[in-house]
Amino acid sequence: MATIQDIANRLGVSKGTVSKALNGAPDISETLQKSILETAVEMGYKKIRRQKTSLGKLCIITGNLEYKEPHQFGYDIILGFRQMAEPAGYEVDIVSADQELQKNISYDVYMLRNNYLGAFILGFSFSDPWMKEFSSSKTPAVLYDNYITANLNIAYVGVDSNEGMELAISHLKKLGHKKIGYLSSSLASHIMLARQKAFFQALKQNGLKGEPSCAGSAFYITECIEKHLPRLLDMGITAIVCSHDLVANAAMIQCQQLGYRIPEDLSIIGFDDIPICAHTSPPLTTVRQDRIQLGKSGYYALESLKNRVPIGTLLLHAQLIERNSTGRCRE
Amino acid sequence: MATIQDIANRLGVSKGTVSKALNGAPDISETLQKSILETAVEMGYKKIRRQKTSLGKLCIITGNLEYKEPHQFGYDIILGFRQMAEPAGYEVDIVSADQELQKNISYDVYMLRNNYLGAFILGFSFSDPWMKEFSSSKTPAVLYDNYITANLNIAYVGVDSNEGMELAISHLKKLGHKKIGYLSSSLASHIMLARQKAFFQALKQNGLKGEPSCAGSAFYITECIEKHLPRLLDMGITAIVCSHDLVANAAMIQCQQLGYRIPEDLSIIGFDDIPICAHTSPPLTTVRQDRIQLGKSGYYALESLKNRVPIGTLLLHAQLIERNSTGRCRE
Repeated sequence: MATIQDIANRLGVSKGTVSKALNGAPDISETLQKSILETAVEMGYKKIRRQKTSLGKLCIITGNLEYKEPHQFGYDIILGFRQMAEPAGYEVDIVSADQELQKNISYDVYMLRNNYLGAFILGFSFSDPWMKEFSSSKTPAVLYDNYITANLNIAYVGVDSNEGMELAISHLKKLGHKKIGYLSSSLASHIMLARQKAFFQALKQNGLKGEPSCAGSAFYITECIEKHLPRLLDMGITAIVCSHDLVANAAMIQCQQLGYRIPEDLSIIGFDDIPICAHTSPPLTTVRQDRIQLGKSGYYALESLKNRVPIGTLLLHAQLIERNSTGRCRE
Repeated sequence: MATIQDIANRLGVSKGTVSKALNGAPDISETLQKSILETAVEMGYKKIRRQKTSLGKLCIITGNLEYKEPHQFGYDIILGFRQMAEPAGYEVDIVSADQELQKNISYDVYMLRNNYLGAFILGFSFSDPWMKEFSSSKTPAVLYDNYITANLNIAYVGVDSNEGMELAISHLKKLGHKKIGYLSSSLASHIMLARQKAFFQALKQNGLKGEPSCAGSAFYITECIEKHLPRLLDMGITAIVCSHDLVANAAMIQCQQLGYRIPEDLSIIGFDDIPICAHTSPPLTTVRQDRIQLGKSGYYALESLKNRVPIGTLLLHAQLIERNSTGRCRE
């Protein structure tokens, strides 16, 4: 477990300053206090604001999402949530709810039995049994990348797909690309449907043609690449936008094996900005989902639901990270 | 100015309890404290948390929006914002910025000169000069019903138009309506465009036809009614959704003068749920924008921008308020 000294070393401040921040002393700036509390959460320091009465328990429910290691997608989302919730006085449990558990107990009963005031729910898809319950559940829940209509107890947080695709397509248009394709993993989730729709909308907004045949999807990445990439290349496409970075990376490798140079012959854009993007060959241009901030916005949304402010949708701004997988269109 | 006794009387609690809540005493429940602080703000009590150092100044900038009287649209939005911000320790100024002022000083300079940390901006349209500046401004701003792309310092809050129109159209569909029209005020604003688009999307989702000719808009309500209502009635439309309640009320009156009974011959739905809706003849079915909650969500969004959580869009759940202007379709 991290000590006060460890936190002080990391931030280059004195032990006394860390101690003051942890105990909420008034003679320390709000910004510094926030930074120390966030670092304490990140480093696993356990005694934040010991003097403060707990506000109660929240839980982060992880479905099909990896989060235990720093390079995994869910790690920073969970960290960002905890960095807001724990200094505010909440206890946060991280629990997994597989489909078996979801079939055996209803969401509201599960929350009540465990004394959870609200949940932040990651990695659920249409096939999770609780997804149907969320239409009428009573306990506040914030869903990452899933949208439920007309229940005032449920909010959706995510990155703005429309803004992200608009940034990607207008970037490609500036580089002279006119024929742009789209590769996606399975469309059996809210967010993959939303991204594909946003892709076509962005083409339209930029005055570019987008026939349904310029998009392809499949459950497995290899299947998606094998099935759709040759077709897109035959159609004379000069740039490909992908539903996420792993698809983009697989597409780059396959194109290079087929003799295409990236970005001279073909530009490729991913989505997410996972850590590998800076290290692919070439480094991948992508739309960033800031995962720490996603976690923090999950906390804001849950806090507002708890206060009966019925947030339905909270979208973070998307950002385009320009690296070397996109370049000027040939011709 | 309201006294501690006034607040105690309104809530039916003792003066001592009010005093404890105002001074942040720990032996009072969070819910009760919140309720007392919100009532204190609403009643104009001035000395909230005297012992607490001010966190700084925020401003609410009102463009073309009426807010000074309780029945006016902006009143509750501003109250909701203040009910969150003032107990948290902020001073809140309400300022108006007409187009003359906006031409003479830039938004960022205005904010800096007045020591404002962030703004909640109501009633701006495309013609306001600052709208262009918001693409690159540096001072956090939350815009009610206006969306700016790709600036991490700007967020949009509003009620979910898609959800609202979906609730309205599926309600009409359940009542047997198939031919549905739409009347709107001027489309020269983000939100009026969004609502009209949401109307057509909801028709599509419900498997109903929606040709462009079944919608009509105009700057003045009377003009809109005169120009488009007879045409919609000639088309055999049995229900009309309106962009807001005042259009709906004008449409009801005109239809009744033409001999149509509401809802026996024609169903009408508004948007907003302003106070008159319960008192029109018949009382108006409408999509509610909860204005107190909109104000509170404006505060949440601004607070998160200040903490560098780059919220772009925050939408409250819409709610359908069923009254008597909608009924079963004839035939």
